[in-house]
Amino acid sequence: MMTVLNDTLTKIAPVDETLTGAIQAHLDDLTKPQGSRGLLEAVVARYCKARNTASPATPTKRIVCFGADHGVCEEGISAFPAEVTPQMVMNMLGGGAAINAFTKHVGSDLVIVDMGVNDPLADAPDTLKRCKIRSGTGNIAKGPAMTEAEAQAALEAGINLANEAAADGITLLGSGDMGIGNTTPSTALYCALLGCEPRDITGPGTGLDAEGVHHKVAVIEHALEINKERLTSPLSTLAAVGGLEIAGIAGLILGGAANRIPIVVDGFISTAGAVVALALCPAVKDYLLFSHMSKEPGHAGILAKLQAEPLLDLGLRLGEGTGAALAMSLIDASIKFYTEMATFSGAGVSDSN
Amino acid sequence: MMTVLNDTLTKIAPVDETLTGAIQAHLDDLTKPQGSRGLLEAVVARYCKARNTASPATPTKRIVCFGADHGVCEEGISAFPAEVTPQMVMNMLGGGAAINAFTKHVGSDLVIVDMGVNDPLADAPDTLKRCKIRSGTGNIAKGPAMTEAEAQAALEAGINLANEAAADGITLLGSGDMGIGNTTPSTALYCALLGCEPRDITGPGTGLDAEGVHHKVAVIEHALEINKERLTSPLSTLAAVGGLEIAGIAGLILGGAANRIPIVVDGFISTAGAVVALALCPAVKDYLLFSHMSKEPGHAGILAKLQAEPLLDLGLRLGEGTGAALAMSLIDASIKFYTEMATFSGAGVSDSN
Repeated sequence: MMTVLNDTLTKIAPVDETLTGAIQAHLDDLTKPQGSRGLLEAVVARYCKARNTASPATPTKRIVCFGADHGVCEEGISAFPAEVTPQMVMNMLGGGAAINAFTKHVGSDLVIVDMGVNDPLADAPDTLKRCKIRSGTGNIAKGPAMTEAEAQAALEAGINLANEAAADGITLLGSGDMGIGNTTPSTALYCALLGCEPRDITGPGTGLDAEGVHHKVAVIEHALEINKERLTSPLSTLAAVGGLEIAGIAGLILGGAANRIPIVVDGFISTAGAVVALALCPAVKDYLLFSHMSKEPGHAGILAKLQAEPLLDLGLRLGEGTGAALAMSLIDASIKFYTEMATFSGAGVSDSN
Repeated sequence: MMTVLNDTLTKIAPVDETLTGAIQAHLDDLTKPQGSRGLLEAVVARYCKARNTASPATPTKRIVCFGADHGVCEEGISAFPAEVTPQMVMNMLGGGAAINAFTKHVGSDLVIVDMGVNDPLADAPDTLKRCKIRSGTGNIAKGPAMTEAEAQAALEAGINLANEAAADGITLLGSGDMGIGNTTPSTALYCALLGCEPRDITGPGTGLDAEGVHHKVAVIEHALEINKERLTSPLSTLAAVGGLEIAGIAGLILGGAANRIPIVVDGFISTAGAVVALALCPAVKDYLLFSHMSKEPGHAGILAKLQAEPLLDLGLRLGEGTGAALAMSLIDASIKFYTEMATFSGAGVSDSN
């Protein structure tokens, strides 16, 4: 059956590795010791290949921040109450959240999406993208988060936002999230899709104490146990123990890759979206730029499993897309040195001995 | 005797730690979980205290990049020939170096200084700051790099550039260097001032192979041995085994601190300048922001000795101030979230349980 999801998965192609030679030759002719820009050289090469060019332009940037609520909050797995999700979505729409300051700072658009906030957000301005699939997920400690049809609809909403970004001329996307309780479904997804153990990767989220983390481990173990018959495919797993904003992020990544737009992955929640997207289509890996190592203790091991080298390690644990925004500034810088620097041949500078 | 140097050292005061409470109270009222901005919260607190305010403005930024040559290059301790120093200074003045792309990207001024390039730079544009103390240092493997009077003059040139920056309204300084061979005197300074062993902290610089590093260790050991009678004070040590650009950086740091302008320290070379400044006046530590962990293998241990937490770890090994420039973007972001975000009380967002 041809659906937006299947159509998108079909469109995603691995990058053309034959560009590597031309990109490396240009990097090595820039007036600097070879390799001296470190990770930024890898970043610009990845950006170039995703965009299918050895001559990239400075990116036009957009961060898409997906908001949703989580039924599992009734198990007491978050330091903040669930009503903070709609409050923070309104705060973002009003310009008062950290992501507003950071996107403004790095010159990125910001799109706020209601994927499943448990509130009508009746007073929200028109800038809110209304893609609500349902008003929060079901409690994964008691049953599935959502149906497969809902999970697919959420993925397709993310894909549609990537298609819109492509139509708007965006050439670098970033993901973000706002959803009280969402480290719990993210952790469950890592366990189900990557074979991690809850006790190894469960952390305090926005601020649980040690006892709270212990309880959260038990809730995640229980969620995986009662949903175990449903963990048979990436889509069914997302539906069983995932979240609507995580599905939106996964869709944004798939849609970005289908449009050859690289995606900057934010922290712990967005990486869960990336893991879903990778499970659905391994070729998306060439389009991902991992922004930062979250303070959430499980993130380091998960990034290592993905062979991802994050650009930043600042002890951030906030989400919203804030790590992605900060990394965008470094990605911009990497593209600017690649395009603006003089070459040894052009500048009359002697090369190394 | 009242000199520019002594006068400056007298002016440097520890920051007012009583500001900490007001800064932390504001950080904790911002609409984010407490501490969730990680290292950026420490950065804005440090910036505020250096500026002596709990209400900082977005910084006006300048990177000062000091160029100089090193007599020790005749020992074959660098992958690049010494004539690259004037070539790269001209390249920077022409806008073609990495630091040009990065300062433009982050909205920082860039000042290029000839502290001791072994070339008249006759064709340089007027934008070059001509502070040449001498045309390159002496070979530290055969005797002192310079006289104490020359070292003091170089420090004072750096101080004067900080005073100029203050007069120009600059509120965030960054240091940079261009000097073929300068990891050698930097390493010698670390050994003399911090008690490191050459074999533990000597690295490849811009690209030596293992045999080259082995030879460089021997050169540094020899330089420390033949200059050992001269390593009696920070100034005499700087004169004996230092460099003119390193002295300029140390002076910029001292002058910045005296003017309450925080200084973003670039990589391996600039950290050596910081170590000289700290030896002359320990109170400058409150004014330092360490930008990045260099790929130069000794840098990590030295930063640990200084209890410095660098903002970035990108495998950069280039100098010029490029790490400082990239870090400036993060420092800007930290100040912007501090000043632009909504508060829990103002935004109607519930605080944690």
